[in-house]
Amino acid sequence: MGRKPKRESSETLCSGMFQMQLDAQWIVGFVDGEGCFHVGISAHRDMRAGVQVLPEFTVVQHKRDVRVLHALKAHFGCGVVRVNHGDRMAFRVRGIEHLLERVVPFFMEHPLKTSKNVDFLKFRDVLLEMERGQHLTDEGLQKIRGIAKQMNRGRLRQSPAGPETG
Amino acid sequence: MGRKPKRESSETLCSGMFQMQLDAQWIVGFVDGEGCFHVGISAHRDMRAGVQVLPEFTVVQHKRDVRVLHALKAHFGCGVVRVNHGDRMAFRVRGIEHLLERVVPFFMEHPLKTSKNVDFLKFRDVLLEMERGQHLTDEGLQKIRGIAKQMNRGRLRQSPAGPETG
Repeated sequence: MGRKPKRESSETLCSGMFQMQLDAQWIVGFVDGEGCFHVGISAHRDMRAGVQVLPEFTVVQHKRDVRVLHALKAHFGCGVVRVNHGDRMAFRVRGIEHLLERVVPFFMEHPLKTSKNVDFLKFRDVLLEMERGQHLTDEGLQKIRGIAKQMNRGRLRQSPAGPETG
Repeated sequence: MGRKPKRESSETLCSGMFQMQLDAQWIVGFVDGEGCFHVGISAHRDMRAGVQVLPEFTVVQHKRDVRVLHALKAHFGCGVVRVNHGDRMAFRVRGIEHLLERVVPFFMEHPLKTSKNVDFLKFRDVLLEMERGQHLTDEGLQKIRGIAKQMNRGRLRQSPAGPETG
Protein backbone atom coordinates (compact mmCIF):
# COMPACT_ATOMS: atom_id res chain seq x y z
CA MET A 1 0.00 0.00 0.00
CA GLY A 2 1.06 3.68 0.27
CA ARG A 3 4.37 4.48 1.89
CA LYS A 4 4.37 5.18 5.59
CA PRO A 5 4.98 8.74 6.77
CA LYS A 6 8.01 9.31 9.00
CA ARG A 7 5.91 10.69 11.81
CA GLU A 8 2.27 10.67 12.73
CA SER A 9 0.93 14.18 13.05
CA SER A 10 -1.71 16.40 11.52
CA GLU A 11 1.00 17.70 9.20
CA THR A 12 1.49 14.32 7.64
CA LEU A 13 -2.03 14.49 6.23
CA CYS A 14 -2.87 16.78 3.36
CA SER A 15 -6.13 16.69 1.41
CA GLY A 16 -6.73 13.20 2.68
CA MET A 17 -3.39 11.93 1.36
CA PHE A 18 -0.15 11.18 3.11
CA GLN A 19 2.26 14.08 3.15
CA MET A 20 4.88 13.89 0.42
CA GLN A 21 8.41 13.52 1.80
CA LEU A 22 10.92 15.81 0.13
CA ASP A 23 14.60 15.19 -0.44
CA ALA A 24 16.86 18.19 0.34
CA GLN A 25 18.34 18.19 -3.17
CA TRP A 26 14.87 18.04 -4.73
CA ILE A 27 13.98 21.16 -2.73
CA VAL A 28 17.16 22.92 -3.92
CA GLY A 29 16.40 22.05 -7.54
CA PHE A 30 12.75 23.08 -7.24
CA VAL A 31 13.63 26.38 -5.55
CA ASP A 32 16.35 27.00 -8.16
CA GLY A 33 13.51 26.80 -10.65
CA GLU A 34 10.49 28.21 -8.85
CA GLY A 35 11.60 29.95 -5.66
CA CYS A 36 11.88 33.67 -4.99
CA PHE A 37 13.80 35.57 -2.32
CA HIS A 38 12.37 39.04 -2.09
CA VAL A 39 12.79 42.10 0.10
CA GLY A 40 9.86 44.50 0.00
CA ILE A 41 10.40 48.02 1.35
CA SER A 42 7.32 50.13 1.90
CA ALA A 43 6.29 53.31 3.66
CA HIS A 44 4.79 52.57 7.07
CA ARG A 45 3.85 55.41 9.40
CA ASP A 46 3.99 53.25 12.54
CA MET A 47 7.60 52.16 11.98
CA ARG A 48 10.42 54.13 13.58
CA ALA A 49 12.17 54.91 10.29
CA GLY A 50 8.82 55.48 8.51
CA VAL A 51 9.58 52.45 6.38
CA GLN A 52 8.87 48.74 6.71
CA VAL A 53 11.28 46.09 5.44
CA LEU A 54 9.50 42.86 4.48
CA PRO A 55 11.73 39.96 3.48
CA GLU A 56 9.91 36.90 2.15
CA PHE A 57 10.68 33.55 0.61
CA THR A 58 8.02 32.26 -1.75
CA VAL A 59 7.41 29.32 -4.05
CA VAL A 60 4.44 29.64 -6.41
CA GLN A 61 2.67 26.75 -8.15
CA HIS A 62 -0.56 26.07 -9.96
CA LYS A 63 -3.17 24.88 -7.47
CA ARG A 64 -3.05 21.39 -9.01
CA ASP A 65 0.36 21.03 -7.32
CA VAL A 66 -0.57 22.49 -3.95
CA ARG A 67 0.62 19.20 -2.41
CA VAL A 68 4.26 20.09 -3.02
CA LEU A 69 3.71 23.48 -1.37
CA HIS A 70 2.27 21.77 1.72
CA ALA A 71 5.23 19.39 1.66
CA LEU A 72 7.62 22.38 1.61
CA LYS A 73 5.72 23.94 4.53
CA ALA A 74 6.03 20.67 6.47
CA HIS A 75 9.72 20.36 5.60
CA PHE A 76 10.64 23.87 6.74
CA GLY A 77 8.20 23.70 9.66
CA CYS A 78 7.04 27.26 9.06
CA GLY A 79 5.28 29.53 6.59
CA VAL A 80 1.82 29.44 5.05
CA VAL A 81 0.23 28.08 1.89
CA ARG A 82 -2.15 30.67 0.42
CA VAL A 83 -3.81 31.67 -2.83
CA ASN A 84 -1.31 33.78 -4.77
CA HIS A 85 -3.25 34.93 -7.80
CA GLY A 86 -6.05 33.22 -9.69
CA ASP A 87 -5.26 29.53 -9.99
CA ARG A 88 -1.84 29.93 -8.43
CA MET A 89 -0.95 29.08 -4.84
CA ALA A 90 2.10 30.18 -2.87
CA PHE A 91 4.14 28.76 -0.03
CA ARG A 92 5.41 31.85 1.78
CA VAL A 93 7.69 32.43 4.76
CA ARG A 94 7.79 35.98 6.11
CA GLY A 95 8.76 36.08 9.77
CA ILE A 96 12.42 37.05 10.29
CA GLU A 97 12.90 34.34 12.94
CA HIS A 98 11.60 31.57 10.70
CA LEU A 99 13.65 32.88 7.79
CA LEU A 100 16.83 33.06 9.89
CA GLU A 101 16.32 29.81 11.78
CA ARG A 102 14.72 27.55 9.15
CA VAL A 103 15.16 28.84 5.61
CA VAL A 104 18.64 30.40 5.68
CA PRO A 105 20.42 27.46 7.38
CA PHE A 106 18.86 25.05 4.88
CA PHE A 107 20.16 26.94 1.84
CA MET A 108 23.56 27.52 3.50
CA GLU A 109 23.86 23.77 3.96
CA HIS A 110 22.42 22.96 0.53
CA PRO A 111 23.46 25.78 -1.82
CA LEU A 112 21.34 26.73 -4.81
CA LYS A 113 23.06 25.97 -8.11
CA THR A 114 21.70 28.78 -10.28
CA SER A 115 22.32 32.53 -10.01
CA LYS A 116 19.38 32.53 -7.57
CA ASN A 117 22.03 31.78 -4.98
CA VAL A 118 23.32 35.34 -5.42
CA ASP A 119 19.85 36.64 -4.54
CA PHE A 120 19.67 34.27 -1.61
CA LEU A 121 22.99 35.53 -0.18
CA LYS A 122 21.85 39.15 -0.48
CA PHE A 123 18.54 38.18 1.12
CA ARG A 124 20.53 36.66 3.98
CA ASP A 125 22.59 39.87 4.28
CA VAL A 126 19.36 41.86 4.69
CA LEU A 127 18.12 39.43 7.36
CA LEU A 128 21.40 39.69 9.27
CA GLU A 129 21.14 43.51 9.16
CA MET A 130 17.59 43.26 10.46
CA GLU A 131 18.66 40.87 13.19
CA ARG A 132 21.01 43.64 14.38
CA GLY A 133 18.14 46.15 14.24
CA GLN A 134 19.77 48.05 11.40
CA HIS A 135 16.47 48.42 9.54
CA LEU A 136 15.41 50.82 12.31
CA THR A 137 18.20 53.30 11.59
CA ASP A 138 18.54 55.62 8.60
CA GLU A 139 22.03 54.37 7.86
CA GLY A 140 21.06 50.69 8.11
CA LEU A 141 17.99 51.26 5.97
CA GLN A 142 20.14 52.91 3.32
CA LYS A 143 22.36 49.85 3.29
CA ILE A 144 19.36 47.49 3.08
CA ARG A 145 17.94 49.51 0.18
CA GLY A 146 21.29 49.15 -1.55
CA ILE A 147 21.31 45.39 -1.12
CA ALA A 148 17.64 45.00 -2.11
CA LYS A 149 18.30 47.01 -5.29
CA GLN A 150 20.84 44.42 -6.41
CA MET A 151 18.42 41.55 -5.91
CA ASN A 152 16.18 39.88 -8.49
CA ARG A 153 18.34 41.13 -11.37
CA GLY A 154 18.20 44.76 -10.30
CA ARG A 155 14.48 45.09 -10.98
CA LEU A 156 13.52 47.81 -8.49
CA ARG A 157 10.37 49.85 -8.82
CA GLN A 158 10.97 53.15 -7.05
CA SER A 159 8.15 55.31 -5.89
CA PRO A 160 8.51 57.85 -3.06
CA ALA A 161 4.87 57.39 -2.04
CA GLY A 162 4.25 53.76 -2.90
CA PRO A 163 5.92 50.50 -2.04
CA GLU A 164 9.42 49.71 -3.22
CA THR A 165 10.26 46.26 -4.42
CA GLY A 166 13.79 44.99 -4.11
CA MET B 1 41.33 24.13 -4.79
CA GLY B 2 38.27 23.46 -6.96
CA ARG B 3 36.74 19.98 -6.85
CA LYS B 4 38.01 17.49 -9.35
CA PRO B 5 35.68 16.48 -12.17
CA LYS B 6 34.80 12.78 -12.37
CA ARG B 7 36.35 12.41 -15.80
CA GLU B 8 38.68 14.44 -17.93
CA SER B 9 36.96 15.33 -21.17
CA SER B 10 35.92 18.38 -23.14
CA GLU B 11 32.49 18.05 -21.53
CA THR B 12 33.87 18.67 -18.07
CA LEU B 13 34.84 22.18 -19.12
CA CYS B 14 32.24 24.85 -19.70
CA SER B 15 33.04 28.53 -20.18
CA GLY B 16 36.44 27.92 -18.67
CA MET B 17 34.97 26.49 -15.46
CA PHE B 18 34.73 22.94 -14.22
CA GLN B 19 31.46 21.26 -15.08
CA MET B 20 28.88 21.41 -12.31
CA GLN B 21 28.01 17.96 -10.94
CA LEU B 22 24.28 17.44 -10.51
CA ASP B 23 22.50 15.29 -7.95
CA ALA B 24 19.65 13.17 -9.36
CA GLN B 25 17.13 14.65 -6.93
CA TRP B 26 18.25 18.20 -7.79
CA ILE B 27 17.54 17.39 -11.44
CA VAL B 28 14.08 16.05 -10.54
CA GLY B 29 13.27 19.19 -8.53
CA PHE B 30 14.58 21.49 -11.25
CA VAL B 31 12.68 19.68 -14.00
CA ASP B 32 9.55 19.66 -11.82
CA GLY B 33 9.91 23.44 -11.88
CA GLU B 34 11.39 24.24 -15.29
CA GLY B 35 11.19 21.19 -17.51
CA CYS B 36 8.80 20.52 -20.37
CA PHE B 37 7.82 17.27 -22.08
CA HIS B 38 6.27 18.11 -25.40
CA VAL B 39 5.01 16.27 -28.45
CA GLY B 40 4.81 18.37 -31.59
CA ILE B 41 2.76 17.06 -34.50
CA SER B 42 3.18 18.82 -37.82
CA ALA B 43 2.40 18.27 -41.47
CA HIS B 44 5.39 16.85 -43.35
CA ARG B 45 5.05 15.83 -46.99
CA ASP B 46 8.06 13.49 -46.85
CA MET B 47 6.63 11.38 -44.02
CA ARG B 48 4.62 8.27 -44.82
CA ALA B 49 1.53 9.44 -42.93
CA GLY B 50 1.99 13.04 -44.12
CA VAL B 51 2.62 14.05 -40.54
CA GLN B 52 5.74 14.26 -38.38
CA VAL B 53 5.69 13.49 -34.66
CA LEU B 54 8.38 15.40 -32.75
CA PRO B 55 8.73 14.56 -29.07
CA GLU B 56 11.13 16.77 -27.14
CA PHE B 57 12.30 17.31 -23.60
CA THR B 58 13.40 20.87 -22.85
CA VAL B 59 14.60 22.93 -19.93
CA VAL B 60 14.75 26.69 -20.50
CA GLN B 61 16.81 29.16 -18.45
CA HIS B 62 18.06 32.71 -18.70
CA LYS B 63 21.49 32.74 -20.36
CA ARG B 64 23.08 33.75 -17.05
CA ASP B 65 22.40 30.15 -15.91
CA VAL B 66 23.54 28.38 -19.06
CA ARG B 67 25.99 26.45 -16.86
CA VAL B 68 23.18 24.34 -15.39
CA LEU B 69 21.93 23.56 -18.89
CA HIS B 70 25.40 22.33 -19.88
CA ALA B 71 25.49 20.30 -16.66
CA LEU B 72 22.15 18.69 -17.61
CA LYS B 73 23.50 17.91 -21.09
CA ALA B 74 26.58 16.29 -19.53
CA HIS B 75 24.44 14.36 -17.04
CA PHE B 76 22.10 12.90 -19.66
CA GLY B 77 24.93 12.51 -22.16
CA CYS B 78 22.76 13.75 -25.02
CA GLY B 79 20.86 16.75 -26.32
CA VAL B 80 21.96 20.26 -27.22
CA VAL B 81 22.14 23.65 -25.51
CA ARG B 82 20.87 26.38 -27.84
CA VAL B 83 19.41 29.86 -27.80
CA ASN B 84 15.69 29.53 -27.14
CA HIS B 85 14.38 33.06 -27.46
CA GLY B 86 16.09 36.37 -26.72
CA ASP B 87 18.07 36.02 -23.49
CA ARG B 88 16.80 32.51 -22.86
CA MET B 89 18.71 29.32 -23.55
CA ALA B 90 17.35 25.78 -23.77
CA PHE B 91 18.69 22.30 -23.13
CA ARG B 92 16.79 20.15 -25.59
CA VAL B 93 16.67 16.40 -26.32
CA ARG B 94 14.83 15.37 -29.46
CA GLY B 95 16.10 12.07 -30.83
CA ILE B 96 13.79 9.16 -29.97
CA GLU B 97 16.75 6.90 -29.06
CA HIS B 98 18.24 9.41 -26.64
CA LEU B 99 14.81 10.09 -25.16
CA LEU B 100 14.07 6.36 -24.72
CA GLU B 101 17.54 5.36 -23.55
CA ARG B 102 18.62 8.34 -21.44
CA VAL B 103 15.74 10.59 -20.43
CA VAL B 104 12.89 8.13 -19.85
CA PRO B 105 14.86 5.66 -17.67
CA PHE B 106 16.09 8.54 -15.50
CA PHE B 107 12.58 9.82 -14.75
CA MET B 108 11.25 6.28 -14.28
CA GLU B 109 13.92 5.70 -11.65
CA HIS B 110 13.53 9.18 -10.13
CA PRO B 111 9.85 10.16 -10.51
CA LEU B 112 8.81 13.78 -10.78
CA LYS B 113 6.81 14.95 -7.78
CA THR B 114 4.48 17.46 -9.42
CA SER B 115 1.70 16.85 -11.92
CA LYS B 116 4.42 17.17 -14.57
CA ASN B 117 4.86 13.45 -13.98
CA VAL B 118 1.50 12.89 -15.68
CA ASP B 119 2.83 14.67 -18.77
CA PHE B 120 6.05 12.68 -18.59
CA LEU B 121 4.16 9.35 -18.52
CA LYS B 122 2.08 10.37 -21.54
CA PHE B 123 5.27 11.52 -23.27
CA ARG B 124 6.72 8.08 -22.58
CA ASP B 125 3.57 6.45 -24.01
CA VAL B 126 4.06 8.39 -27.25
CA LEU B 127 7.71 7.33 -27.41
CA LEU B 128 6.78 3.67 -26.90
CA GLU B 129 4.22 3.95 -29.70
CA MET B 130 6.89 5.48 -31.93
CA GLU B 131 9.35 2.75 -31.01
CA ARG B 132 6.78 0.27 -32.38
CA GLY B 133 6.47 2.39 -35.55
CA GLN B 134 2.88 3.31 -34.74
CA HIS B 135 3.41 6.96 -35.75
CA LEU B 136 3.68 5.71 -39.34
CA THR B 137 0.14 4.28 -39.38
CA ASP B 138 -3.12 6.22 -39.43
CA GLU B 139 -4.43 4.31 -36.45
CA GLY B 140 -1.25 4.80 -34.40
CA LEU B 141 -1.13 8.46 -35.31
CA GLN B 142 -4.70 8.88 -34.14
CA LYS B 143 -3.73 7.34 -30.82
CA ILE B 144 -0.65 9.58 -30.51
CA ARG B 145 -2.74 12.66 -31.25
CA GLY B 146 -5.11 11.59 -28.50
CA ILE B 147 -2.27 11.23 -25.98
CA ALA B 148 -0.61 14.49 -27.06
CA LYS B 149 -3.93 16.31 -26.65
CA GLN B 150 -4.02 15.37 -22.99
CA MET B 151 -0.51 16.67 -22.35
CA ASN B 152 0.52 20.08 -21.02
CA ARG B 153 -2.95 20.64 -19.58
CA GLY B 154 -4.79 19.97 -22.80
CA ARG B 155 -3.38 23.04 -24.56
CA LEU B 156 -3.56 21.94 -28.17
CA ARG B 157 -3.52 24.38 -31.04
CA GLN B 158 -5.25 22.73 -33.96
CA SER B 159 -4.71 23.92 -37.45
CA PRO B 160 -5.26 21.68 -40.49
CA ALA B 161 -2.51 23.46 -42.44
CA GLY B 162 -0.10 24.44 -39.71
CA PRO B 163 1.67 22.62 -36.91
CA GLU B 164 -0.19 21.06 -34.03
CA THR B 165 1.17 21.33 -30.54
CA GLY B 166 0.38 18.69 -27.97
